Amino acid sequence: MASLVVPDSVPSVAEDCEQLHKAFSGWGTNEDLIISILAHRNAEQRKHIRQAYAEIYGQDLLYALEQELSGHFMRIVLLWTLDPAERDAVLLNESTKRYWTSSNQVILEIACTRSSDALLSTKQAYHALFRKSLEEDVAAHITGDFRKLLVPLVSTYRYEGPEMDMTLAEHEAEILHEHISDKEYNHDEIIRILTTRSKPQLYATFDHYNNEFGNAITKDLKTGAADDFLTALRSAIKCLVAPEKYFEKVLRAAMHRTGTDDWALTRVVATRVEVDMNVIKEEYYRRNTVRLDHAIRSDTSGDYEEMLIALTGE
Amino acid sequence: MASLVVPDSVPSVAEDCEQLHKAFSGWGTNEDLIISILAHRNAEQRKHIRQAYAEIYGQDLLYALEQELSGHFMRIVLLWTLDPAERDAVLLNESTKRYWTSSNQVILEIACTRSSDALLSTKQAYHALFRKSLEEDVAAHITGDFRKLLVPLVSTYRYEGPEMDMTLAEHEAEILHEHISDKEYNHDEIIRILTTRSKPQLYATFDHYNNEFGNAITKDLKTGAADDFLTALRSAIKCLVAPEKYFEKVLRAAMHRTGTDDWALTRVVATRVEVDMNVIKEEYYRRNTVRLDHAIRSDTSGDYEEMLIALTGE
Repeated sequence: MASLVVPDSVPSVAEDCEQLHKAFSGWGTNEDLIISILAHRNAEQRKHIRQAYAEIYGQDLLYALEQELSGHFMRIVLLWTLDPAERDAVLLNESTKRYWTSSNQVILEIACTRSSDALLSTKQAYHALFRKSLEEDVAAHITGDFRKLLVPLVSTYRYEGPEMDMTLAEHEAEILHEHISDKEYNHDEIIRILTTRSKPQLYATFDHYNNEFGNAITKDLKTGAADDFLTALRSAIKCLVAPEKYFEKVLRAAMHRTGTDDWALTRVVATRVEVDMNVIKEEYYRRNTVRLDHAIRSDTSGDYEEMLIALTGE
Repeated sequence: MASLVVPDSVPSVAEDCEQLHKAFSGWGTNEDLIISILAHRNAEQRKHIRQAYAEIYGQDLLYALEQELSGHFMRIVLLWTLDPAERDAVLLNESTKRYWTSSNQVILEIACTRSSDALLSTKQAYHALFRKSLEEDVAAHITGDFRKLLVPLVSTYRYEGPEMDMTLAEHEAEILHEHISDKEYNHDEIIRILTTRSKPQLYATFDHYNNEFGNAITKDLKTGAADDFLTALRSAIKCLVAPEKYFEKVLRAAMHRTGTDDWALTRVVATRVEVDMNVIKEEYYRRNTVRLDHAIRSDTSGDYEEMLIALTGE
């Protein structure tokens, strides 16, 4: 499901380092060379390159890239080069410091679309990088209903077995329906169910909700009026049970605007290329009858465009 | 700080298994033999014994012990023999199923006195043993203020570095003081600080509270009237910054009653012997001018008494 293309015969780590170092040397930077190497190495390979680069040249590769590159191209190359757990930790830390609703969305997205162990690795990377916990930063920087939802979402270590308890699903679908009907969208019980149950269990619960009450739960969470918290609840549900639909929508929104939302575009590309980008691409085509690479090409340009295309594939 | 005594020369795992099997054979059970082996092996050694026992005799050692032993003696032997993470998972699962306030205390105690990684291992053991998450069980079985406190306590992955931010400590001591003065004991901000900050940071915050406002925070959380939630807040604070004082008090309460609270006694002994039992013993003597082993001997009897003494040391 990943869109990453790694060549059959990969040069040695030392060779990759030498080529990268060459790309930074002399007049100007060889961006094509950088793309041709980094965009075609997996997380494990990039990690070895970064380690070897530091040993050979006494400099962090990320620092060298930051010196040589700029703009959105720099952002996608840096995000991509980071280890996945460190990358998520960096994105989360960035989000706790911003006061836009869209940063709440990033926190929610990372908390709900990663596996329990991936989220745990991110928390460990967060401790190491920022000398504090993700939980305390989210709890200290976010207030009100968003805090009530986001703190348990980032904290919980969800069960990941395939079991579904149908009686429980029926019972909890009723609880959800009751509070949604009463417009108590921030009710403790809604938060409890969304933030603690396993994904297969939630899938069963939402399925029962749909069958029993005639509407998808996400539809019942639409009031017609703009409401950031309801949008967050809908996003959380999508991230938990249909992440490819969620990411398709983020990409669509990022490129349907006047001016591209490069913050969202770089984040989704960097975080999904090694996971499920091909499924997201299919979903994107199904929904828009435009291929994702065509959309990217028409919204971006230059090295930035080439890097995004190299990662997502034509 | 551990009270466990492992002999200089430990028999082979196979020999231990053979002796245990012998202790179960023939007429009656040789309890002394069981104590002399299990009470003097560390977690790693017990794990190997359990694995080897299953391989050699085709039976889980825990099951064999359950068949042979009974009463409080059985409980302490089983709890002790369990791997620490499994033991905590079993204690937590038991607690989510009981409807006494004292089971809330067990949840709180385990969440606040274990290291982040120990708590994580417990959550992993919980997944494996019960096919669901600790978080969902705590959230589903506990209600009201206790849920508000206990769910984040069991969920959070606390930072464990030694850093203390003194400005933050002053600021948060004021927040705590303000809400405690207003008797808003269940305020979101009190819960947020207790459930997300690192232990050294909380230590600095409580220290500043004491210096600035003239009373220890635990003293300000006493109203004179019995209030289970205030007791829980005081226990959480003690567990986080002075676990030996907390455990001393649990042991004192367990043995000062008419009738011993064996549920508490077996739990504290089984969980602290390999951690800080000697510090708890010192604290116990300092507070009661009675040695812990004397208190145990006067409250218990038979094999149960001998097992407890073998674990805690004379």
